[in-house]
Amino acid sequence: MFQLPSNHVVPSKLLIPSHRISKDETEQLLSLALLSPTSFNIQNWRFLMVRDPELRRQIRAVAWDQAQVTDASLLIVLTADLKSWAREPARYWRNAPQPVQEFILPAIEQFYNGHEQVQRDEAMRSCGIVAMALMLAAQEMGYASCPMVGFDFDKVGKLINLPVDHVVAMFVTIGKGGQGCMG
Amino acid sequence: MFQLPSNHVVPSKLLIPSHRISKDETEQLLSLALLSPTSFNIQNWRFLMVRDPELRRQIRAVAWDQAQVTDASLLIVLTADLKSWAREPARYWRNAPQPVQEFILPAIEQFYNGHEQVQRDEAMRSCGIVAMALMLAAQEMGYASCPMVGFDFDKVGKLINLPVDHVVAMFVTIGKGGQGCMG
Repeated sequence: MFQLPSNHVVPSKLLIPSHRISKDETEQLLSLALLSPTSFNIQNWRFLMVRDPELRRQIRAVAWDQAQVTDASLLIVLTADLKSWAREPARYWRNAPQPVQEFILPAIEQFYNGHEQVQRDEAMRSCGIVAMALMLAAQEMGYASCPMVGFDFDKVGKLINLPVDHVVAMFVTIGKGGQGCMG
Repeated sequence: MFQLPSNHVVPSKLLIPSHRISKDETEQLLSLALLSPTSFNIQNWRFLMVRDPELRRQIRAVAWDQAQVTDASLLIVLTADLKSWAREPARYWRNAPQPVQEFILPAIEQFYNGHEQVQRDEAMRSCGIVAMALMLAAQEMGYASCPMVGFDFDKVGKLINLPVDHVVAMFVTIGKGGQGCMG
């Protein structure tokens, strides 16, 4: 049985800043994450891997100076496209039987169109689901991970040039040697 | 390495209606779910296990008549308390060192107080995270699972007597013999 990441950790247990995760391991993590379910298969999450050390420092400065932002092997900013449901949704179901397509495509339209709060809820739900997939995959690969919301969402959006119609949902940091973070 | 639930399934693969999950297995599932991380450890999720067959039928009627609502061994309505951050938050951190408590408690207040959208985002994020924990735990126990948003959220809220300041985030159905659902 898999073990869930602890939610009772303190920030003294820091990640090892010098550790580098391999490209293969990073791809393994992301390929697993990409299998996470999304409502109506709209795959609304967008993952930003922040690799530039200077950008990491700038993000840390608006993230309560939490060390894992710069020290983790991976800093993944989970964002979502609020309008993915409207971007040629037929392609998300092109391999489904025709009757399923005929049911699901109008259902997608009806579920999201004009419902801004539902679109935003979906962003947060999808990113929550994929965050857990990332954290459990990381754990099985021997890494520690940390879900984070302790940062200024607007400032992070500006720093990463968040496109219009997108939203930042949370961070996941992944690294070696520690297990902790605070928020 | 664990396997993620598929998001490319069609509704013809139904769960076996007659299967009953044991009390021990149900408790095992939920005890794992309760270890899922929440922001600031506010544990804002609330799980409703719907066992009454008549209530299951009523929910199915407002959930696009999806068979798994009545046929799954478990129907778990994931809801969240939008105000859990304000309900004596010191108890969530009572085992943490004093300096951590002194930092985190004002941070919780500042993060959520007066920010209704942030409170709602947190509900959806937390429920997404725990939904994935439930689905992966179910899979490791040999069960199929299905995340669902294809239902009338307001009508479901009325049917389950959703308390004030709470919100329905999604369903997770868990059962034997199938693997599928649509939305």
